[in-house]
Amino acid sequence: MIKKKIVIALGGNAMIKRGENISFENQMKNINSAARFIAQLSHEYNIAIVHGNGPQVGLLALQNNAYTEVPAYPLDVLVAETQGMLGYMLMQSLQQQGLQDVSCVLTRVEVEKNDPAFVNPTKFIGPVYLADQQSQLEQQHGWTLKADGEFIRRVVPSPSPVQVLEAGQITRLLDDNHTVICCGGGGMPVVHSDLGYQGVEAVIDKDLVASMLAEQINADYLLILTDADAIYTDWGTPQQKALRDVTIEQIRPFAVPDGAMGPKAEAVIQFVENTGCLAFIGALKDVDQILTGEKGTCIRSHAPVTTGRSLVV
Amino acid sequence: MIKKKIVIALGGNAMIKRGENISFENQMKNINSAARFIAQLSHEYNIAIVHGNGPQVGLLALQNNAYTEVPAYPLDVLVAETQGMLGYMLMQSLQQQGLQDVSCVLTRVEVEKNDPAFVNPTKFIGPVYLADQQSQLEQQHGWTLKADGEFIRRVVPSPSPVQVLEAGQITRLLDDNHTVICCGGGGMPVVHSDLGYQGVEAVIDKDLVASMLAEQINADYLLILTDADAIYTDWGTPQQKALRDVTIEQIRPFAVPDGAMGPKAEAVIQFVENTGCLAFIGALKDVDQILTGEKGTCIRSHAPVTTGRSLVV
Repeated sequence: MIKKKIVIALGGNAMIKRGENISFENQMKNINSAARFIAQLSHEYNIAIVHGNGPQVGLLALQNNAYTEVPAYPLDVLVAETQGMLGYMLMQSLQQQGLQDVSCVLTRVEVEKNDPAFVNPTKFIGPVYLADQQSQLEQQHGWTLKADGEFIRRVVPSPSPVQVLEAGQITRLLDDNHTVICCGGGGMPVVHSDLGYQGVEAVIDKDLVASMLAEQINADYLLILTDADAIYTDWGTPQQKALRDVTIEQIRPFAVPDGAMGPKAEAVIQFVENTGCLAFIGALKDVDQILTGEKGTCIRSHAPVTTGRSLVV
Repeated sequence: MIKKKIVIALGGNAMIKRGENISFENQMKNINSAARFIAQLSHEYNIAIVHGNGPQVGLLALQNNAYTEVPAYPLDVLVAETQGMLGYMLMQSLQQQGLQDVSCVLTRVEVEKNDPAFVNPTKFIGPVYLADQQSQLEQQHGWTLKADGEFIRRVVPSPSPVQVLEAGQITRLLDDNHTVICCGGGGMPVVHSDLGYQGVEAVIDKDLVASMLAEQINADYLLILTDADAIYTDWGTPQQKALRDVTIEQIRPFAVPDGAMGPKAEAVIQFVENTGCLAFIGALKDVDQILTGEKGTCIRSHAPVTTGRSLVV
């Protein structure tokens, strides 16, 4: 049986919950739980997992700053360290769930040197701080900080992905029926130069990278797993309603930079628009029901011909 | 042309020199220099690179201890982080040298739960300390420390490798003409249990792992690069003499646990004994001349039939 290929974007909260101490034990507990859900899909699909790393890269930055004998490493190197850390933990956990072959491929993602994100950092990383610590933190670490609710938090540039540089290796291993962990934290951001690829200090949105990877490796589906169990209209009002099956035109209004679903909506739109394949957004705990259309939101390029989505998936 | 397969073990000193501040800039400078040498071999060989990580894992341990809000991560996770850090830096640097396809595969190495190393830690990691700091460091971090010259240094268990778990992926990518960075720091040590593989706190000797990998992937050659430009008899005396071409019987006396060449001699003996192939030990700067027999030490299972080694290699 040739399995279908699916790219799963796994939110940072699947590995550490907001407010939880980011200890090894807490992460392992959450990762074990996530691995149990993902393992359910491994019978039917060859899976590439793109995981987030916001809290983890923030932790490494704090550890780097706490040990003052050696200057803090650049952000792209810290992203690489989180790919090692989380890739290893996911590998172990997925194999304990019975998956035979699991690989983790270090992944770089090319971005444009002139991406406007470099002059307007927007991606939150690391813990929250009290607002009155702003100037002290700016001076001490050279960080940019912005408001995150009632707190402040470090922000870094989040340029758009241009291409996943290791897509060839990832395809090769998927075609060998490996589960492949890759593009962790959105990949190490590099820009093209006369000397070859050079790392830059940024964090690329992992959902946009998952979308680009899905396109590059000819995946059949893109599945974005998050805290929300679907995309909702009128969220937070008595009229709120989960969208089960929509066209890209219907979710385009959600693809705004500041919206909670912004990059996720943009990611699924790009994949569906460029490939004609289906994308899904839903909660980790519902993973086996999202692809059958019982839970989550399915996004497609045109309205379905029949009402039974199972005819298509 | 089908290229021959070679496993290169790259000493930690190729990435950071003893006494140098382990900053990103210093590491990158050394890695760029190492990459230039290794790139010379890429025309003739498909290369798997197994790098050391002693100073790097020591740095991460110090950073973990310096930031006290989150408990320090286990050593196997820190090894995984160094595979990310150094794998990324090596990838970038090798590609800047013109290598087309470079992959880094996270690698775990199985060890025996009952390996005697777990009750007798011997592997130095991290910086040196003054002898009178011993009891303070033991109490503060729960470390074991042993004398290293006139200083003391942290030691961790160094169990023997049983198998490289990701040898299949590594072979697959090498056969695709990729340069593969793998088994960094000797790999993440895991033991087999009823629940699957479990990480353990240890560091596996990278030369022994390189030897095991070379055997598992049917490599043609094993090349151990180090500070010494060959194995010498009567080292440090007026009679000292570099060994150019020897049998495993001739270097068996060097394979003692406490000798400077101990694990390296053991590694080459195992590979040559089990495969009948050739192994080499020499200096990074001589890399292109070691395989032609002009520099370094060549180790083979039996004495050569002719005197010109180039007939064999």
